[in-house]
Amino acid sequence: MREVFQQELQEVQERLVEIAELVAISIENATTAFNESNVTLAETVIADDDKIDALAVSLDELAINILARQQPVARDLRIVVSALRISASLERMGDMSEHIAQLARYRFPEKVVPKSLRATFVEMGQLDVIVARKLTELLRTEDVRLAEEIRSEDDKIDALHLSVFNKVLGDSWKGGAEDTVDSTLASRYHERFADHAVSIAKKVQYLGTGDWVSTDY
Amino acid sequence: MREVFQQELQEVQERLVEIAELVAISIENATTAFNESNVTLAETVIADDDKIDALAVSLDELAINILARQQPVARDLRIVVSALRISASLERMGDMSEHIAQLARYRFPEKVVPKSLRATFVEMGQLDVIVARKLTELLRTEDVRLAEEIRSEDDKIDALHLSVFNKVLGDSWKGGAEDTVDSTLASRYHERFADHAVSIAKKVQYLGTGDWVSTDY
Repeated sequence: MREVFQQELQEVQERLVEIAELVAISIENATTAFNESNVTLAETVIADDDKIDALAVSLDELAINILARQQPVARDLRIVVSALRISASLERMGDMSEHIAQLARYRFPEKVVPKSLRATFVEMGQLDVIVARKLTELLRTEDVRLAEEIRSEDDKIDALHLSVFNKVLGDSWKGGAEDTVDSTLASRYHERFADHAVSIAKKVQYLGTGDWVSTDY
Repeated sequence: MREVFQQELQEVQERLVEIAELVAISIENATTAFNESNVTLAETVIADDDKIDALAVSLDELAINILARQQPVARDLRIVVSALRISASLERMGDMSEHIAQLARYRFPEKVVPKSLRATFVEMGQLDVIVARKLTELLRTEDVRLAEEIRSEDDKIDALHLSVFNKVLGDSWKGGAEDTVDSTLASRYHERFADHAVSIAKKVQYLGTGDWVSTDY
């Protein structure tokens, strides 16, 4: 029974890694589509999000099934419950990718943001991709140093997010209302993407300490 | 044992209702602060969000504790798992209130949005308050007709959210970049607030049918 349970926990972990990999591909495609006005790639991201959603639902069903049959306690129980929460956060990360891709598709063949902000968004996009890859590795290896690294990448993204507002609200901003709206939303989506990764990283990091629930918010 | 479990489930429900009530007060204060530039009320909302967060954490601890001790199966298990998710969504609704209050505080003594959008935001705010109150009632009574009503209020909020973009991107828009940024973010916060309520309503609605997990996304 115990052995079956360990196998099932391993399957949960493998499925989380699988979803995280798809999220990493999704944000890479979404940010490329966004920065290069690639509408085909944007449509790929939008279509692929259904797959991420379906995998998250299926993982949730597995986790609830494990709770019902194995009735885990203590740390094992917390692992299964945190898997449910991690899958919800991964699903939201996929949504953020999709929103970024939707902006690219909507503005095609124009670029979403004006020239003065493009370098900033390229950098934010690269950082989001790094965060997603590190998150996949963290879920695979449980190497908590990666959690610290994700937090530090997130700090950089927060700083860029702030710099977008400073630019948009600065005297030199020449963008019209559409540029302002799109830059605001795009920046928030990039920033939220990384926030969800930090929230997942915290859960993995604190699973070992037993008090992870209180660090959730 | 069974009786103890039923009492515990009832406590979970009561605590969800308690959090939902605080969220309803929070959005009422936040939208009033927003529409009337009331900085004191805005600060109340921001301070009170810590209380909502703490109650959500404490409810999560109770739910995990119930899973460990009572080892529920079937519908009982789904109720406890959905309580964990509902608490996460309520916590996010509190965050949206806080963000709306932060915009009000930041712009004080000015109003956050220009005149041409004020009536729209008053209406969105009222609808968010209605949604929060109906949600509290739904959690208290499990009367699923309320879930339908919440969905229908959410449709109105989505339409208003769209109308904000149409206004901001229209030829008659005279707002500066700051107005555009704040209107965009404020509209999104109002809309996301109701989205979370719809997501909770779906969970309550489908708890009876047994297939709620697949309607999660």
